[in-house]
Amino acid sequence: MMTIDPVDLAKALIAAPSVTPATGAVFDVLEAALAPLGFTVERFIDGIEPDGPVENLLAVRKGAGPRHFGFAGHLDVVPPGIGWTGDAFDPQVRGDLLYGRGAVDMKGAIAAFVAAAAATPPEAGTISLIVTGDEEGPAVFGTRALIEHMDARALKPDLIVVGEPTSMQRLGDMVKIGRRGSVNIWIDVPGTQGHVAYPHLADNPIPKLVRILAAIDTVTLDEGTRWFQRSNIEFTDIEVGNGATNVIPASARARLSIRFNDQQRGAELIQMVERIAQDVEPNAKVVGKISGEAFLTPPGALSALVSDAIHAETGLTPELSTTGGTSDARFLHTLCPVVEFGLINATMHKLDEAVAVADLQTLAAIYRGILTRAFGA
Amino acid sequence: MMTIDPVDLAKALIAAPSVTPATGAVFDVLEAALAPLGFTVERFIDGIEPDGPVENLLAVRKGAGPRHFGFAGHLDVVPPGIGWTGDAFDPQVRGDLLYGRGAVDMKGAIAAFVAAAAATPPEAGTISLIVTGDEEGPAVFGTRALIEHMDARALKPDLIVVGEPTSMQRLGDMVKIGRRGSVNIWIDVPGTQGHVAYPHLADNPIPKLVRILAAIDTVTLDEGTRWFQRSNIEFTDIEVGNGATNVIPASARARLSIRFNDQQRGAELIQMVERIAQDVEPNAKVVGKISGEAFLTPPGALSALVSDAIHAETGLTPELSTTGGTSDARFLHTLCPVVEFGLINATMHKLDEAVAVADLQTLAAIYRGILTRAFGA
Ligand SMILES: [Zn+2]
Ligand SMILES: [Zn+2]
Repeated sequence: MMTIDPVDLAKALIAAPSVTPATGAVFDVLEAALAPLGFTVERFIDGIEPDGPVENLLAVRKGAGPRHFGFAGHLDVVPPGIGWTGDAFDPQVRGDLLYGRGAVDMKGAIAAFVAAAAATPPEAGTISLIVTGDEEGPAVFGTRALIEHMDARALKPDLIVVGEPTSMQRLGDMVKIGRRGSVNIWIDVPGTQGHVAYPHLADNPIPKLVRILAAIDTVTLDEGTRWFQRSNIEFTDIEVGNGATNVIPASARARLSIRFNDQQRGAELIQMVERIAQDVEPNAKVVGKISGEAFLTPPGALSALVSDAIHAETGLTPELSTTGGTSDARFLHTLCPVVEFGLINATMHKLDEAVAVADLQTLAAIYRGILTRAFGA
Repeated sequence: MMTIDPVDLAKALIAAPSVTPATGAVFDVLEAALAPLGFTVERFIDGIEPDGPVENLLAVRKGAGPRHFGFAGHLDVVPPGIGWTGDAFDPQVRGDLLYGRGAVDMKGAIAAFVAAAAATPPEAGTISLIVTGDEEGPAVFGTRALIEHMDARALKPDLIVVGEPTSMQRLGDMVKIGRRGSVNIWIDVPGTQGHVAYPHLADNPIPKLVRILAAIDTVTLDEGTRWFQRSNIEFTDIEVGNGATNVIPASARARLSIRFNDQQRGAELIQMVERIAQDVEPNAKVVGKISGEAFLTPPGALSALVSDAIHAETGLTPELSTTGGTSDARFLHTLCPVVEFGLINATMHKLDEAVAVADLQTLAAIYRGILTRAFGA
């Protein structure tokens, strides 16, 4: 069996700049690491500018065992920004830390998983790596395209771990078992412009919008669940754009953001807002844009084996959490149970992003332990 | 006694362009007409750019009788705009009509009043003309300055007629005995910016603004009076200016316009809004700007003699009204009873502003009748 050093591989991945949308060199590095381990690597490029082209990689190593374990991640990174101590794409170990854009989010985790796969006997079970170059961007040509690609090949993992940096203070203190969904909703209330001195000739849309928003403000979507905080509605903007103090405006617009748990679906929330708005003004127009539905993998076999593996290496029992923003797990959970676990997220998306060298080794061991348990060894 | 032809004088006044703020030539024309009639004419210039300089004219002819009658008006005009059939400042009679900027608002009425004064025996009573070059503008250096000037000379009319174009369909069909007041109010609600995923770390100002506006929306200021329609609150703008769908904004702002009758005072309305706003959010900031207080000259001796004079010349009994925007009567009513009466307002502030030549003669006769009745002849 070949051995992979996760630190060396992480360095090689960091050294290939890959700001979203990513293609090319960084995928060459990953393919070069996976091919000798017996993985069949497929790469395809999807999309056009400005959100593409995006490269996606699917690597599969068929095993004798019946179980199929998937590891999902992304090789794209957010722009480095200005002010790094060194070069964001020149990986450097200083003290205990390896610095570089993507060190924790999430080239380091991918390197750790490759090391874990290298240390796992091929016959134990089937392993897939589902790796996109478009997670930090609009995610239109990324994981969704990979899922279609897998569908077309009838490839369906039994379990998936996403390698996002979920740890907070110490490696292993948190696993994500779900994420809230997110939807933005725009409400447009039409009116009839006029002069404030002659209100009977006009139809002011603002009081109607106020009544709509006041009604929405009284809505309690739920009280939260065992695993989720309560779904929350925030008004994020109101726009009338009327500069004239003596004019009743022709229209008024508001925007809402709802972060919702698995008790709601995006489309239902849009319909609810539309119902409230059109109760007040039948001609109100409501448009919603769902960024992602909520998902939950209720604590069970998958989270138990991940927790077990973490505990074995670190002594920690991870908190099972559903906090934070969205991730590509919102797409993958349609395939099978999904949880997210990876490095400490304190420096993600920041200047001088860095990972403890020791954490890369420990994470590789945890992923190795997860594979062992997943394959029932 | 000299005779003045109101049509000739109106033409001469129109021929002197006088877009707000006005000074110079147009006042020379008026002074040249008044001096031979025995008026003592004082002119002074007040204010600086951009709202000034403004010329004001006070003309007084002392009479033997005890009554002091004031006529108030303005020689400034709104800009002509583009699209006139002829030249807006080249007065021309075509058919029955005299065309020119200011024909009805209100050089025509001033000419008619001068003709009426010329036809009134000087001994009958004291006549003042209170004429500003800043009525169509911010009115900061206009009638208010004239009132101070009169105060300093202990000049105080017993009655004032303002020559604004109050007639609607036919000369004499409407007299204004009051005007609504007007105030604009801004409400600023502060908050704490944050990310929609972490609402507990932020403080969204929009729901608070919505609650404030919903409370204001339930307010009934009054039910209207015998002479006034009900006071009315209009929301004219809401401004948040937050482009980011995932951000809770730091502040939210709304603007109201209140047109109010003589049951309210501007300052009380601002205080009321402040009370409602600070009930919801103690740090809400409320700022008001009063354009003018309401005034009413309840029907009485002045409106009766004006109506009488109108009826004698036209057979019409004018409606006593308080509709429409503000006028300088809002300042003058502090001196004595004030009503407004003048030409047909259909073309005021429009292209091809025009007055019927016959109306100028009739208005001169009505003003003459008003003077006769005011002086108790
Ligand atoms: Zn990530
Ligand atoms: Zn006017």
